[in-house]
Amino acid sequence: MNPISEYFPVWDKLTNEQKKELSESAVERQFPRGTVIHEGGMGCTGLLVIQSGQLRAFITSVDGREITLYRLLERDICLFSASCMIRSIQFDISIEAETDCRLWIIPADVYHGLMEQSVPLSGYTNELMAARFSEVMWLMEQILWGSMDQRIATYLLEQSDLQNSDRLTVTHEQIARDLGTAREVVTRMLRYFKNEGMVGISRGSVEITDKNKLSAIAENKKPAE
Amino acid sequence: MNPISEYFPVWDKLTNEQKKELSESAVERQFPRGTVIHEGGMGCTGLLVIQSGQLRAFITSVDGREITLYRLLERDICLFSASCMIRSIQFDISIEAETDCRLWIIPADVYHGLMEQSVPLSGYTNELMAARFSEVMWLMEQILWGSMDQRIATYLLEQSDLQNSDRLTVTHEQIARDLGTAREVVTRMLRYFKNEGMVGISRGSVEITDKNKLSAIAENKKPAE
Repeated sequence: MNPISEYFPVWDKLTNEQKKELSESAVERQFPRGTVIHEGGMGCTGLLVIQSGQLRAFITSVDGREITLYRLLERDICLFSASCMIRSIQFDISIEAETDCRLWIIPADVYHGLMEQSVPLSGYTNELMAARFSEVMWLMEQILWGSMDQRIATYLLEQSDLQNSDRLTVTHEQIARDLGTAREVVTRMLRYFKNEGMVGISRGSVEITDKNKLSAIAENKKPAE
Repeated sequence: MNPISEYFPVWDKLTNEQKKELSESAVERQFPRGTVIHEGGMGCTGLLVIQSGQLRAFITSVDGREITLYRLLERDICLFSASCMIRSIQFDISIEAETDCRLWIIPADVYHGLMEQSVPLSGYTNELMAARFSEVMWLMEQILWGSMDQRIATYLLEQSDLQNSDRLTVTHEQIARDLGTAREVVTRMLRYFKNEGMVGISRGSVEITDKNKLSAIAENKKPAE
């Protein structure tokens, strides 16, 4: 198990007292796959620091529909399970353990107190929020007018037919060029496909691991989750 | 004209030097209605502090469609026109003057430098970002699950507040753009509202004739702000 210091890139800029407070307040917890660790509107669970496993952040409609906003992996920190810390956060996100997880939970009041002492920690929290904001903006653009998911899915399936294999020899660069888009867009979309279990990615190749799911995207639009 | 100190609720927690740097770096500018002050991907315009007028923040699709994310009014501060300050902001927002505007522009590097010195300013910036994030989340929920009757009713009431009148100068086109939908959808819904006695429609304007009824539709689900 890694010490908690490794999960905070600004650790070295904290005072010894702050380090002590942060690490002593952190409670270790394990959650089996499928546990809803934080439910929107449930109050302040605390900051989640992911030692191992995968979390899914989602929102729910009044009539029970869900959409995944983003995923959090090992070494990520979940801020919105401690949204009470920041007054202006006026929305509720739920967090589910998508695999068995081991986490630290840092109480919101402790973390908030430290943020009010430490510029680096406050700045890092800003970065955390901005990173999630960026993921949500990307998702929104996809929902509003994205057909890039559809185009890339179609492309992969075509290549699979052409190469007569589910393991495609193709670089992100090449896909981007073929589709007339930026490499980053392709990388980001492939990462999304990967998180959804549709493809595996390795250097210079993409493997289709769930053809049905990929076809559903290719044929239609983005599937509601 | 109000001094810049009044636009920063954390002003009193800055040192004299920081106050001086902030106020001396701020450049006053006026923009006529319709000016695009900041264009997504254009780099770092700086922090916009709104003395008077109204700004619109929006994103644009590759093929030129727009959706309004939120509006900024007198005393608001626009962070995303200085998004280069925060590494993890990976999206582009454009900002347009929706009325004649008077602003201060604070250079991003100055503001960033101050954020790295001042915990209160860093925390306030966190709050600014969280407030915009909340508006975007609300919009996303509207897009995903909000019924259009509710969205248009809400929009008309908000515009009525903004324009301080029950007779709104607004075209169906404009409503559609702001809500990210088709003009026909708006026209159809307004016709429905008209038949229900809630609004009157004439060329280039919509008059609210039954505010209570319209509010009932709007309040169905709209969250606390």
